[in-house]
Amino acid sequence: MTKNTKVNAAILIIGNEILSGRTQDTNTGTIALWLNSIGVKVNEVRIIPDIEDTIIDTVNYLRKVNEYVFTTGGIGPTHDDITAQSISRAFNVEYEIHQEAFKILEAYYEVGEFNEGRQKMVWMPRNANLILNPTSGAPGFNIENIFCLPGVPSILKSMLGGLRNKIVGGKPILSHTISLKTVESEIAKSLSDVQDNNKDIEIGSYPFFQAGKLGVSIVIRSEEQTKINKCSQEILKFIDEKKIEIVKR
Amino acid sequence: MTKNTKVNAAILIIGNEILSGRTQDTNTGTIALWLNSIGVKVNEVRIIPDIEDTIIDTVNYLRKVNEYVFTTGGIGPTHDDITAQSISRAFNVEYEIHQEAFKILEAYYEVGEFNEGRQKMVWMPRNANLILNPTSGAPGFNIENIFCLPGVPSILKSMLGGLRNKIVGGKPILSHTISLKTVESEIAKSLSDVQDNNKDIEIGSYPFFQAGKLGVSIVIRSEEQTKINKCSQEILKFIDEKKIEIVKR
Repeated sequence: MTKNTKVNAAILIIGNEILSGRTQDTNTGTIALWLNSIGVKVNEVRIIPDIEDTIIDTVNYLRKVNEYVFTTGGIGPTHDDITAQSISRAFNVEYEIHQEAFKILEAYYEVGEFNEGRQKMVWMPRNANLILNPTSGAPGFNIENIFCLPGVPSILKSMLGGLRNKIVGGKPILSHTISLKTVESEIAKSLSDVQDNNKDIEIGSYPFFQAGKLGVSIVIRSEEQTKINKCSQEILKFIDEKKIEIVKR
Repeated sequence: MTKNTKVNAAILIIGNEILSGRTQDTNTGTIALWLNSIGVKVNEVRIIPDIEDTIIDTVNYLRKVNEYVFTTGGIGPTHDDITAQSISRAFNVEYEIHQEAFKILEAYYEVGEFNEGRQKMVWMPRNANLILNPTSGAPGFNIENIFCLPGVPSILKSMLGGLRNKIVGGKPILSHTISLKTVESEIAKSLSDVQDNNKDIEIGSYPFFQAGKLGVSIVIRSEEQTKINKCSQEILKFIDEKKIEIVKR
Protein backbone atom coordinates (compact mmCIF):
# COMPACT_ATOMS: atom_id res chain seq x y z
CA MET A 1 0.00 0.00 0.00
CA THR A 2 1.31 3.46 -0.86
CA LYS A 3 1.16 5.72 2.12
CA ASN A 4 0.33 9.38 1.92
CA THR A 5 2.67 11.49 3.97
CA LYS A 6 -0.07 13.84 5.12
CA VAL A 7 -3.23 12.39 6.58
CA ASN A 8 -5.38 14.78 8.57
CA ALA A 9 -8.16 14.30 11.06
CA ALA A 10 -10.55 16.39 13.13
CA ILE A 11 -11.90 15.51 16.55
CA LEU A 12 -15.42 16.58 17.45
CA ILE A 13 -16.26 16.49 21.15
CA ILE A 14 -20.04 16.53 21.62
CA GLY A 15 -21.32 17.44 25.06
CA ASN A 16 -22.72 20.28 27.17
CA GLU A 17 -20.79 18.96 30.18
CA ILE A 18 -17.47 19.86 28.57
CA LEU A 19 -18.62 23.33 27.49
CA SER A 20 -19.94 24.12 30.96
CA GLY A 21 -16.59 23.23 32.50
CA ARG A 22 -18.19 20.52 34.65
CA THR A 23 -16.22 17.73 32.96
CA GLN A 24 -12.60 17.91 31.83
CA ASP A 25 -12.17 16.49 28.32
CA THR A 26 -9.33 13.99 28.13
CA ASN A 27 -10.47 12.20 24.96
CA THR A 28 -8.75 14.72 22.70
CA GLY A 29 -5.35 13.76 24.08
CA THR A 30 -6.11 10.04 23.94
CA ILE A 31 -7.25 10.13 20.32
CA ALA A 32 -4.52 12.57 19.20
CA LEU A 33 -1.67 10.50 20.65
CA TRP A 34 -3.08 7.33 19.12
CA LEU A 35 -3.54 8.99 15.72
CA ASN A 36 0.00 10.41 15.82
CA SER A 37 1.35 6.91 16.38
CA ILE A 38 -0.32 5.71 13.18
CA GLY A 39 0.65 8.73 11.09
CA VAL A 40 -2.49 10.83 11.29
CA LYS A 41 -2.24 14.46 12.35
CA VAL A 42 -5.05 16.23 14.15
CA ASN A 43 -5.78 19.48 12.35
CA GLU A 44 -8.57 20.78 14.49
CA VAL A 45 -10.71 19.98 17.51
CA ARG A 46 -14.18 21.35 18.10
CA ILE A 47 -16.28 21.07 21.22
CA ILE A 48 -19.99 21.64 20.61
CA PRO A 49 -23.24 21.32 22.57
CA ASP A 50 -25.87 18.56 22.34
CA ILE A 51 -27.85 20.44 19.69
CA GLU A 52 -28.91 18.47 16.63
CA ASP A 53 -28.49 21.20 14.00
CA THR A 54 -25.08 22.15 15.37
CA ILE A 55 -23.93 18.53 15.24
CA ILE A 56 -25.21 18.11 11.68
CA ASP A 57 -23.61 21.30 10.37
CA THR A 58 -20.30 20.66 12.10
CA VAL A 59 -20.07 17.04 10.97
CA ASN A 60 -20.93 17.97 7.40
CA TYR A 61 -18.23 20.61 7.35
CA LEU A 62 -15.49 18.61 9.06
CA ARG A 63 -15.98 15.45 6.99
CA LYS A 64 -15.39 17.40 3.80
CA VAL A 65 -12.09 18.96 4.86
CA ASN A 66 -10.49 16.05 6.74
CA GLU A 67 -9.60 12.50 5.82
CA TYR A 68 -11.07 11.30 9.11
CA VAL A 69 -13.40 12.70 11.75
CA PHE A 70 -13.69 11.21 15.23
CA THR A 71 -16.66 12.15 17.39
CA THR A 72 -16.95 11.47 21.10
CA GLY A 73 -20.08 11.49 23.23
CA GLY A 74 -23.81 11.29 22.76
CA ILE A 75 -24.20 7.60 21.93
CA GLY A 76 -25.56 6.40 25.26
CA PRO A 77 -29.12 5.49 26.29
CA THR A 78 -30.45 8.83 27.56
CA HIS A 79 -32.49 11.63 25.96
CA ASP A 80 -29.41 13.88 25.63
CA ASP A 81 -27.60 11.25 23.53
CA ILE A 82 -28.40 12.46 20.03
CA THR A 83 -25.23 11.80 18.06
CA ALA A 84 -26.50 8.76 16.10
CA GLN A 85 -29.73 10.43 15.00
CA SER A 86 -27.86 13.63 14.10
CA ILE A 87 -25.28 11.76 12.02
CA SER A 88 -28.12 9.94 10.23
CA ARG A 89 -29.60 13.29 9.31
CA ALA A 90 -26.19 14.67 8.32
CA PHE A 91 -25.84 11.79 5.81
CA ASN A 92 -29.54 11.84 4.94
CA VAL A 93 -29.95 8.13 5.69
CA GLU A 94 -32.45 6.24 7.83
CA TYR A 95 -31.95 6.17 11.62
CA GLU A 96 -32.89 2.59 12.41
CA ILE A 97 -32.17 -0.52 14.45
CA HIS A 98 -28.80 -2.00 13.52
CA GLN A 99 -29.43 -5.76 13.50
CA GLU A 100 -25.89 -6.79 14.35
CA ALA A 101 -25.68 -4.29 17.23
CA PHE A 102 -29.06 -5.57 18.48
CA LYS A 103 -27.75 -9.15 18.54
CA ILE A 104 -24.57 -8.09 20.35
CA LEU A 105 -26.46 -6.29 23.12
CA GLU A 106 -29.16 -8.97 23.35
CA ALA A 107 -26.39 -11.49 24.04
CA TYR A 108 -24.47 -9.10 26.32
CA TYR A 109 -27.29 -8.49 28.79
CA GLU A 110 -29.08 -11.00 31.01
CA VAL A 111 -32.59 -11.97 29.96
CA GLY A 112 -34.95 -9.08 30.74
CA GLU A 113 -32.11 -6.56 31.15
CA PHE A 114 -32.08 -5.40 27.53
CA ASN A 115 -34.60 -2.67 28.26
CA GLU A 116 -35.91 0.29 26.28
CA GLY A 117 -33.03 2.58 27.32
CA ARG A 118 -30.43 0.06 26.24
CA GLN A 119 -32.26 -0.64 22.98
CA LYS A 120 -31.81 3.03 22.09
CA MET A 121 -28.10 2.29 21.74
CA VAL A 122 -28.65 0.00 18.72
CA TRP A 123 -30.30 2.76 16.69
CA MET A 124 -27.78 3.95 14.13
CA PRO A 125 -27.51 5.38 10.62
CA ARG A 126 -28.43 2.71 8.01
CA ASN A 127 -25.44 0.64 6.86
CA ALA A 128 -23.18 1.90 9.65
CA ASN A 129 -20.17 -0.30 10.44
CA LEU A 130 -19.85 -1.23 14.07
CA ILE A 131 -16.89 -0.27 16.27
CA LEU A 132 -16.75 -3.01 18.86
CA ASN A 133 -16.72 -2.18 22.55
CA PRO A 134 -14.81 -4.67 24.71
CA THR A 135 -15.64 -2.76 27.92
CA SER A 136 -19.37 -2.28 28.09
CA GLY A 137 -20.96 -3.94 25.07
CA ALA A 138 -22.61 -1.06 23.22
CA PRO A 139 -20.73 -0.52 19.95
CA GLY A 140 -19.76 2.75 18.36
CA PHE A 141 -20.18 3.11 14.61
CA ASN A 142 -18.51 4.30 11.46
CA ILE A 143 -20.09 5.74 8.34
CA GLU A 144 -17.85 6.90 5.48
CA ASN A 145 -14.99 8.82 7.13
CA ILE A 146 -16.78 9.51 10.45
CA PHE A 147 -16.04 7.39 13.52
CA CYS A 148 -18.41 7.78 16.46
CA LEU A 149 -17.07 6.86 19.87
CA PRO A 150 -18.50 7.15 23.37
CA GLY A 151 -17.63 9.96 25.78
CA VAL A 152 -16.56 7.83 28.75
CA PRO A 153 -12.73 7.93 28.53
CA SER A 154 -12.01 4.36 29.68
CA ILE A 155 -14.53 2.89 27.23
CA LEU A 156 -13.29 5.06 24.36
CA LYS A 157 -9.69 3.97 25.03
CA SER A 158 -10.64 0.31 24.89
CA MET A 159 -12.26 0.78 21.46
CA LEU A 160 -9.41 2.49 19.61
CA GLY A 161 -7.40 -0.69 19.07
CA GLY A 162 -10.26 -2.20 17.05
CA LEU A 163 -10.13 0.75 14.66
CA ARG A 164 -6.50 0.23 13.69
CA ASN A 165 -7.26 -1.56 10.44
CA LYS A 166 -9.84 0.99 9.33
CA ILE A 167 -7.48 3.96 9.41
CA VAL A 168 -4.80 4.38 6.76
CA GLY A 169 -2.21 6.74 8.13
CA GLY A 170 0.84 8.38 6.63
CA LYS A 171 4.29 8.23 8.13
CA PRO A 172 4.15 8.35 11.92
CA ILE A 173 4.96 11.79 13.28
CA LEU A 174 8.13 11.55 15.33
CA SER A 175 9.13 13.95 18.07
CA HIS A 176 12.07 14.78 20.26
CA THR A 177 11.94 16.94 23.38
CA ILE A 178 14.81 18.89 24.93
CA SER A 179 14.03 20.31 28.37
CA LEU A 180 16.10 23.18 29.69
CA LYS A 181 16.61 25.10 32.90
CA THR A 182 16.00 28.49 31.35
CA VAL A 183 13.21 30.86 30.39
CA GLU A 184 11.78 31.24 26.89
CA SER A 185 13.10 34.76 26.34
CA GLU A 186 16.72 33.55 26.78
CA ILE A 187 16.47 31.18 23.84
CA ALA A 188 13.81 32.88 21.69
CA LYS A 189 16.17 34.46 19.18
CA SER A 190 18.42 31.40 18.73
CA LEU A 191 15.43 29.09 18.47
CA SER A 192 13.84 31.32 15.87
CA ASP A 193 17.08 31.12 13.83
CA VAL A 194 16.99 27.31 14.01
CA GLN A 195 13.36 27.38 12.88
CA ASP A 196 14.33 29.60 9.93
CA ASN A 197 17.04 27.07 8.96
CA ASN A 198 14.57 24.19 9.18
CA LYS A 199 11.34 25.47 7.73
CA ASP A 200 9.70 22.07 7.24
CA ILE A 201 10.16 21.07 10.90
CA GLU A 202 7.69 21.98 13.62
CA ILE A 203 9.54 23.44 16.61
CA GLY A 204 7.49 24.31 19.68
CA SER A 205 8.61 26.00 22.86
CA TYR A 206 6.69 25.33 26.08
CA PRO A 207 7.44 26.84 29.47
CA PHE A 208 7.02 24.61 32.52
CA PHE A 209 7.30 24.80 36.29
CA GLN A 210 8.96 21.92 38.06
CA ALA A 211 9.87 21.75 41.75
CA GLY A 212 9.57 25.52 41.98
CA LYS A 213 11.96 26.15 39.06
CA LEU A 214 11.16 27.56 35.64
CA GLY A 215 12.04 25.59 32.57
CA VAL A 216 11.33 25.30 28.86
CA SER A 217 10.67 22.21 26.79
CA ILE A 218 11.57 22.44 23.14
CA VAL A 219 9.62 19.94 21.06
CA ILE A 220 10.81 19.06 17.56
CA ARG A 221 8.30 17.23 15.37
CA SER A 222 8.73 15.76 11.90
CA GLU A 223 8.13 12.59 9.91
CA GLU A 224 11.89 12.34 9.26
CA GLN A 225 14.24 11.27 12.05
CA THR A 226 17.27 12.67 10.19
CA LYS A 227 15.65 16.11 10.07
CA ILE A 228 14.87 15.93 13.79
CA ASN A 229 18.50 14.99 14.47
CA LYS A 230 19.88 17.87 12.42
CA CYS A 231 17.57 20.37 14.13
CA SER A 232 18.37 18.90 17.51
CA GLN A 233 22.10 19.37 16.97
CA GLU A 234 21.63 23.00 16.03
CA ILE A 235 19.67 23.53 19.22
CA LEU A 236 22.23 21.70 21.37
CA LYS A 237 24.94 23.91 19.85
CA PHE A 238 23.38 27.18 21.02
CA ILE A 239 22.44 25.66 24.38
CA ASP A 240 26.07 24.75 24.89
CA GLU A 241 27.24 28.23 23.87
CA LYS A 242 24.77 29.84 26.26
CA LYS A 243 25.79 27.39 29.03
CA ILE A 244 22.16 26.41 29.60
CA GLU A 245 21.55 23.27 31.66
CA ILE A 246 19.56 20.37 30.18
CA VAL A 247 17.09 18.83 32.64
CA LYS A 248 15.22 15.53 32.79
CA ARG A 249 11.45 15.66 32.91
CA MET B 1 -27.71 48.15 33.47
CA THR B 2 -30.18 45.87 31.75
CA LYS B 3 -28.84 42.38 31.53
CA ASN B 4 -29.41 40.12 28.60
CA THR B 5 -30.44 36.67 29.63
CA LYS B 6 -28.35 35.02 26.91
CA VAL B 7 -24.74 35.98 26.52
CA ASN B 8 -22.58 33.61 24.52
CA ALA B 9 -18.88 33.12 24.17
CA ALA B 10 -16.43 30.97 22.23
CA ILE B 11 -13.06 29.75 23.45
CA LEU B 12 -10.23 29.41 20.96
CA ILE B 13 -7.28 27.32 22.11
CA ILE B 14 -4.24 28.04 19.93
CA GLY B 15 -1.42 25.53 20.06
CA ASN B 16 0.12 22.56 18.27
CA GLU B 17 0.97 21.01 21.65
CA ILE B 18 -2.71 20.48 22.44
CA LEU B 19 -3.52 19.04 18.99
CA SER B 20 -0.60 16.60 19.19
CA GLY B 21 -1.83 15.31 22.54
CA ARG B 22 1.44 16.29 24.22
CA THR B 23 -0.26 18.80 26.51
CA GLN B 24 -3.65 18.40 28.15
CA ASP B 25 -5.76 21.55 27.81
CA THR B 26 -7.26 22.67 31.11
CA ASN B 27 -7.90 26.29 30.18
CA THR B 28 -11.28 25.48 28.62
CA GLY B 29 -12.62 24.31 31.98
CA THR B 30 -11.12 27.26 33.85
CA ILE B 31 -12.58 29.85 31.49
CA ALA B 32 -15.94 28.08 31.13
CA LEU B 33 -16.54 27.80 34.88
CA TRP B 34 -15.59 31.45 35.38
CA LEU B 35 -17.84 32.59 32.53
CA ASN B 36 -20.76 30.53 33.86
CA SER B 37 -20.40 32.26 37.21
CA ILE B 38 -20.85 35.66 35.57
CA GLY B 39 -23.71 34.61 33.29
CA VAL B 40 -21.89 33.84 30.05
CA LYS B 41 -22.43 30.52 28.34
CA VAL B 42 -19.74 28.87 26.22
CA ASN B 43 -21.25 27.94 22.87
CA GLU B 44 -18.25 26.42 21.22
CA VAL B 45 -14.57 25.63 21.72
CA ARG B 46 -12.06 25.25 18.92
CA ILE B 47 -8.50 24.03 19.16
CA ILE B 48 -6.35 25.07 16.22
CA PRO B 49 -2.67 24.94 15.25
CA ASP B 50 -0.12 27.79 15.29
CA ILE B 51 -0.86 28.71 11.67
CA GLU B 52 -1.45 32.38 10.96
CA ASP B 53 -4.17 32.03 8.29
CA THR B 54 -6.06 29.51 10.41
CA ILE B 55 -5.96 31.85 13.41
CA ILE B 56 -7.15 34.80 11.32
CA ASP B 57 -10.03 32.94 9.68
CA THR B 58 -11.18 31.34 12.91
CA VAL B 59 -11.04 34.57 14.91
CA ASN B 60 -12.91 36.46 12.21
CA TYR B 61 -15.66 33.86 12.18
CA LEU B 62 -16.01 33.40 15.94
CA ARG B 63 -16.05 37.12 16.74
CA LYS B 64 -19.04 37.62 14.46
CA VAL B 65 -21.22 34.92 15.99
CA ASN B 66 -20.39 35.32 19.67
CA GLU B 67 -20.61 38.19 22.14
CA TYR B 68 -17.14 37.32 23.44
CA VAL B 69 -14.18 35.27 22.23
CA PHE B 70 -11.38 34.17 24.53
CA THR B 71 -8.13 32.94 23.01
CA THR B 72 -5.40 31.13 24.90
CA GLY B 73 -1.81 30.60 23.88
CA GLY B 74 0.67 32.09 21.45
CA ILE B 75 1.47 35.36 23.23
CA GLY B 76 4.89 34.44 24.64
CA PRO B 77 8.38 35.43 23.45
CA THR B 78 9.21 32.60 21.01
CA HIS B 79 8.89 32.22 17.24
CA ASP B 80 5.82 29.98 17.55
CA ASP B 81 3.92 32.69 19.46
CA ILE B 82 1.99 34.32 16.63
CA THR B 83 -1.37 35.17 18.18
CA ALA B 84 -0.83 38.95 18.50
CA GLN B 85 0.37 39.37 14.92
CA SER B 86 -2.46 37.16 13.62
CA ILE B 87 -5.10 39.12 15.54
CA SER B 88 -3.66 42.35 14.15
CA ARG B 89 -4.09 40.99 10.64
CA ALA B 90 -7.59 39.70 11.45
CA PHE B 91 -8.61 43.24 12.43
CA ASN B 92 -6.46 44.81 9.72
CA VAL B 93 -4.67 47.08 12.18
CA GLU B 94 -0.96 47.74 12.80
CA TYR B 95 1.07 45.22 14.81
CA GLU B 96 3.26 47.51 16.88
CA ILE B 97 4.87 48.20 20.23
CA HIS B 98 2.26 48.91 22.89
CA GLN B 99 3.76 51.75 24.91
CA GLU B 100 2.00 50.95 28.16
CA ALA B 101 2.95 47.26 27.93
CA PHE B 102 6.54 48.31 27.20
CA LYS B 103 6.62 50.45 30.36
CA ILE B 104 5.15 47.63 32.44
CA LEU B 105 7.77 45.11 31.33
CA GLU B 106 10.62 47.62 31.47
CA ALA B 107 9.74 48.19 35.13
CA TYR B 108 9.10 44.47 35.77
CA TYR B 109 12.53 43.22 34.70
CA GLU B 110 15.91 44.07 36.18
CA VAL B 111 18.10 46.45 34.15
CA GLY B 112 19.49 44.54 31.17
CA GLU B 113 16.98 41.70 31.49
CA PHE B 114 14.36 43.20 29.18
CA ASN B 115 15.90 41.52 26.14
CA GLU B 116 14.77 41.07 22.55
CA GLY B 117 12.69 37.94 23.33
CA ARG B 118 10.81 39.69 26.11
CA GLN B 119 10.32 42.79 24.00
CA LYS B 120 8.39 40.65 21.50
CA MET B 121 5.67 40.36 24.16
CA VAL B 122 4.83 44.08 23.96
CA TRP B 123 3.99 43.92 20.25
CA MET B 124 0.21 43.99 19.92
CA PRO B 125 -2.56 45.18 17.64
CA ARG B 126 -2.78 48.99 17.64
CA ASN B 127 -5.10 50.37 20.35
CA ALA B 128 -5.37 47.05 22.16
CA ASN B 129 -6.44 47.26 25.81
CA LEU B 130 -4.13 45.47 28.21
CA ILE B 131 -5.17 42.55 30.40
CA LEU B 132 -2.88 42.80 33.41
CA ASN B 133 -0.83 39.80 34.51
CA PRO B 134 -0.17 39.65 38.25
CA THR B 135 1.90 36.45 37.91
CA SER B 136 4.59 37.05 35.33
CA GLY B 137 4.31 40.63 34.11
CA ALA B 138 3.58 40.24 30.40
CA PRO B 139 0.01 41.42 29.78
CA GLY B 140 -2.63 39.86 27.57
CA PHE B 141 -4.76 42.13 25.45
CA ASN B 142 -8.28 42.87 24.33
CA ILE B 143 -9.50 44.29 21.05
CA GLU B 144 -13.24 44.69 20.45
CA ASN B 145 -14.82 41.47 21.72
CA ILE B 146 -11.64 39.33 21.62
CA PHE B 147 -9.66 38.66 24.79
CA CYS B 148 -6.21 37.13 24.34
CA LEU B 149 -4.79 35.21 27.27
CA PRO B 150 -1.62 33.15 27.72
CA GLY B 151 -1.55 29.36 27.50
CA VAL B 152 0.13 28.64 30.86
CA PRO B 153 -2.83 27.66 33.09
CA SER B 154 -1.62 29.24 36.34
CA ILE B 155 -0.92 32.58 34.65
CA LEU B 156 -4.22 32.54 32.77
CA LYS B 157 -6.13 31.87 36.01
CA SER B 158 -4.50 34.82 37.71
CA MET B 159 -5.60 37.16 34.90
CA LEU B 160 -9.31 36.33 34.77
CA GLY B 161 -10.21 38.38 37.85
CA GLY B 162 -8.97 41.54 36.15
CA LEU B 163 -11.39 40.96 33.28
CA ARG B 164 -14.50 40.95 35.45
CA ASN B 165 -15.48 44.54 34.71
CA LYS B 166 -15.00 44.18 30.96
CA ILE B 167 -17.51 41.34 30.55
CA VAL B 168 -21.23 42.01 30.80
CA GLY B 169 -22.93 38.71 31.48
CA GLY B 170 -26.53 37.65 31.67
CA LYS B 171 -28.07 35.83 34.59
CA PRO B 172 -25.63 33.34 36.10
CA ILE B 173 -26.34 29.79 34.98
CA LEU B 174 -27.29 27.73 38.01
CA SER B 175 -27.00 23.98 38.28
CA HIS B 176 -28.01 21.15 40.54
CA THR B 177 -26.55 17.65 40.43
CA ILE B 178 -28.22 14.47 41.66
CA SER B 179 -25.89 11.44 41.76
CA LEU B 180 -27.38 7.99 41.78
CA LYS B 181 -26.31 4.40 42.27
CA THR B 182 -27.78 3.17 39.02
CA VAL B 183 -27.01 2.88 35.32
CA GLU B 184 -28.27 5.27 32.67
CA SER B 185 -30.56 2.77 30.97
CA GLU B 186 -32.58 2.32 34.20
CA ILE B 187 -33.57 5.98 34.27
CA ALA B 188 -33.45 6.88 30.58
CA LYS B 189 -37.20 6.74 29.93
CA SER B 190 -38.25 8.58 33.13
CA LEU B 191 -35.59 11.22 32.64
CA SER B 192 -36.71 11.76 29.07
CA ASP B 193 -40.28 12.30 30.33
CA VAL B 194 -39.04 14.92 32.81
CA GLN B 195 -37.12 16.64 30.00
CA ASP B 196 -40.30 16.69 27.89
CA ASN B 197 -42.15 18.35 30.79
CA ASN B 198 -39.40 20.95 31.19
CA LYS B 199 -38.31 21.86 27.71
CA ASP B 200 -36.47 25.05 28.66
CA ILE B 201 -34.24 23.28 31.21
CA GLU B 202 -30.99 21.56 30.27
CA ILE B 203 -30.87 18.07 31.78
CA GLY B 204 -27.70 16.07 31.28
CA SER B 205 -27.00 12.48 32.28
CA TYR B 206 -23.39 11.42 32.92
CA PRO B 207 -22.25 7.94 33.90
CA PHE B 208 -19.40 7.68 36.41
CA PHE B 209 -17.32 5.01 38.11
CA GLN B 210 -16.61 5.46 41.80
CA ALA B 211 -14.92 2.94 44.09
CA GLY B 212 -15.64 0.22 41.58
CA LYS B 213 -19.36 0.98 41.38
CA LEU B 214 -21.31 2.39 38.47
CA GLY B 215 -23.29 5.56 38.96
CA VAL B 216 -25.04 8.34 37.06
CA SER B 217 -24.98 12.06 37.74
CA ILE B 218 -27.98 14.00 36.55
CA VAL B 219 -27.15 17.66 36.04
CA ILE B 220 -29.98 20.21 35.81
CA ARG B 221 -29.00 23.65 34.46
CA SER B 222 -31.07 26.81 34.16
CA GLU B 223 -30.98 30.51 34.97
CA GLU B 224 -34.05 30.05 37.20
CA GLN B 225 -33.70 28.36 40.57
CA THR B 226 -37.47 27.72 40.77
CA LYS B 227 -37.34 25.79 37.48
CA ILE B 228 -34.41 23.74 38.73
CA ASN B 229 -36.33 22.96 41.91
CA LYS B 230 -39.45 21.85 40.02
CA CYS B 231 -37.41 19.63 37.72
CA SER B 232 -35.45 18.25 40.64
CA GLN B 233 -38.64 17.23 42.44
CA GLU B 234 -39.92 15.38 39.39
CA ILE B 235 -36.64 13.49 39.22
CA LEU B 236 -36.64 12.70 42.94
CA LYS B 237 -40.18 11.35 42.53
CA PHE B 238 -39.25 8.69 39.96
CA ILE B 239 -36.03 7.88 41.83
CA ASP B 240 -38.10 7.18 44.91
CA GLU B 241 -40.57 5.05 42.94
CA LYS B 242 -37.75 3.04 41.41
CA LYS B 243 -36.04 2.71 44.83
CA ILE B 244 -32.76 4.05 43.44
CA GLU B 245 -30.16 5.12 46.00
CA ILE B 246 -28.82 8.69 45.98
CA VAL B 247 -25.05 8.88 46.51
CA LYS B 248 -22.67 11.66 47.54
CA ARG B 249 -19.87 12.57 45.16
